[in-house]
Amino acid sequence: MKYAILFGANSYEHEISIVSAITLKNVINEEKIYIFCDKDREFYLIDEEKLKAKYFSSFEYKKAQKLILKKGGFYQKLLLKEKKIEFDLIVNLIHGKDGEDGTIPSLLDFFNINYIGPRTEGSVISFNKEFTKLYAKSKNVETLPYQVLNKNFKQTIDFDFPIIIKPLRLGSSIGLSVVKKNSELEYALDVAYEFDDDILIEPFYDNIKEYNLAGIKSKDGFIFSMIEEPRKESILDFDKKYLDFSRSEGANKADLSKELKKRIQNNFKNIYGTLFEGAIIRCDFFYKDDKIYLNEINPIPGSLANYLFDDFNDILSMISLNLPKQRKIDIDYKYINSINAVKCK
Amino acid sequence: MKYAILFGANSYEHEISIVSAITLKNVINEEKIYIFCDKDREFYLIDEEKLKAKYFSSFEYKKAQKLILKKGGFYQKLLLKEKKIEFDLIVNLIHGKDGEDGTIPSLLDFFNINYIGPRTEGSVISFNKEFTKLYAKSKNVETLPYQVLNKNFKQTIDFDFPIIIKPLRLGSSIGLSVVKKNSELEYALDVAYEFDDDILIEPFYDNIKEYNLAGIKSKDGFIFSMIEEPRKESILDFDKKYLDFSRSEGANKADLSKELKKRIQNNFKNIYGTLFEGAIIRCDFFYKDDKIYLNEINPIPGSLANYLFDDFNDILSMISLNLPKQRKIDIDYKYINSINAVKCK
Repeated sequence: MKYAILFGANSYEHEISIVSAITLKNVINEEKIYIFCDKDREFYLIDEEKLKAKYFSSFEYKKAQKLILKKGGFYQKLLLKEKKIEFDLIVNLIHGKDGEDGTIPSLLDFFNINYIGPRTEGSVISFNKEFTKLYAKSKNVETLPYQVLNKNFKQTIDFDFPIIIKPLRLGSSIGLSVVKKNSELEYALDVAYEFDDDILIEPFYDNIKEYNLAGIKSKDGFIFSMIEEPRKESILDFDKKYLDFSRSEGANKADLSKELKKRIQNNFKNIYGTLFEGAIIRCDFFYKDDKIYLNEINPIPGSLANYLFDDFNDILSMISLNLPKQRKIDIDYKYINSINAVKCK
Repeated sequence: MKYAILFGANSYEHEISIVSAITLKNVINEEKIYIFCDKDREFYLIDEEKLKAKYFSSFEYKKAQKLILKKGGFYQKLLLKEKKIEFDLIVNLIHGKDGEDGTIPSLLDFFNINYIGPRTEGSVISFNKEFTKLYAKSKNVETLPYQVLNKNFKQTIDFDFPIIIKPLRLGSSIGLSVVKKNSELEYALDVAYEFDDDILIEPFYDNIKEYNLAGIKSKDGFIFSMIEEPRKESILDFDKKYLDFSRSEGANKADLSKELKKRIQNNFKNIYGTLFEGAIIRCDFFYKDDKIYLNEINPIPGSLANYLFDDFNDILSMISLNLPKQRKIDIDYKYINSINAVKCK
């Protein structure tokens, strides 16, 4: 299997995506190539030995081979023709906007390119934190109470402090604040609104447990990672989470009863359902008063949560064998032909 | 304003889209061009005088000018360079898959092309009938009780007959059946599963009223169409609805109290929210025992529901002035530059 790691794009998490790609360079054993989407959404074929953060931040990547995305794949423009770049599967490693909001999956589906990653529907459901909650509820998975505010409408906050404020459509803790008293509120709202016109407000529990579980659905059923209890210093801010995206080891395995582990896995199964087929996702759960709550779905977790799996290369190859297929629609113009006489002469 | 009508694509509603485009040819007064996406997802520039159903069903369109979709627009390939096709705005008129499932909006957003039509989020929410219900509930709009079944899981049906069975992700009544007794069930399930692996089941009420309302959000607020009470013969099947897509007149104005009209409009406003900004949508409501229920959201209704508006050209130009803008994300590599020293040497 030859993978093409797709990363970058026009996203607040652009830089994290670069870090994810660099991390996976040393994790994935199979043959692989790297396709970078820059902030202007131009594609470049990146040499493996040049795959270092500075190569991008210095804009040196602009000297790399430009690629064209069109039907069937990515192409390199030669003088008189176009040469197709050879690979078997895209690994969508674009975090946040473009990658996780449904845009990249739509492009890859439209142009008939096979890929590992969430499809458009699952992307939209996981990217918008309110949709995640509505979806979770429909699958009998609990989430914390919440409120959505919009920049353009004045509304009062329903919860007592402390609360947590997040942009509605971002991952990676960007724009997130814990607000403990009224005097901190205005600034926190400003920060969150900088990233989205809609924000999500939830009560903040200092004493809540966090459990992260990644997994896939293979041909033979679900395969789960270990369950991690992330080390937290109050709450991960962007800088800390940024480093987190480059992890290839060092997960803190949660010490759980067999029964609780099973319950968390069942919640994961309900969320994954058929919606996330083809993707390696990580679900972050809360645990409080013996209740499990879904916090968020990461359909493209940092460095694909490789550090949670015993054998990540095995996971990659198993998900490769269970990718959803697009429904083939045959159009025979039966209706037009039959109705033509009536309407369209 | 010069519009580019985009129609066709790989969808069960491909043919309806052609009919919609033909209908709008005579409705839209402004300058316009026609871009056809065929079932293989190749784009063609179609001459207005050739825009007849038979031109497509006979595959004659293959002789038309092929276009390339890429950054900034659609291009025509010349011997040594590419020529950009000039227009101001795409009108997304692709019904069903590709057009209404988020794919085309994602492509247009990614390639920075302005368009009238739902964005990716609104598309996914309206295309999947369960997501529509979850979303409606979150906006305090009622829907009928339902059940979702999947092809691969045996489940019993919770409702008494008669029930209505629909593929979860289709519009246009394709694959839809009303089942009045057990002996009709198996065939109806087979039909629906032909179009989607998931199906939606709802109770069927023969005596329910139907009210359709289209509208937009302009810079100055909502503008509504008349409310139509569609003429129904039991339920529209695909052939009848197909003809319905070519309508440019003849709406049956519902005879409603001022108060009920207002209530329906308020439900529409709640659904439209910010999610459907940029789109001319039609919401189809049920009315029973003085309660209003959302049946479905058509984010790209047949022939854009032009026949419901007094002055459709005015609606088009007003929505053109209130299209949502993509958030501009500036990437300055601040994090990489600051963390570089620690991690990426």
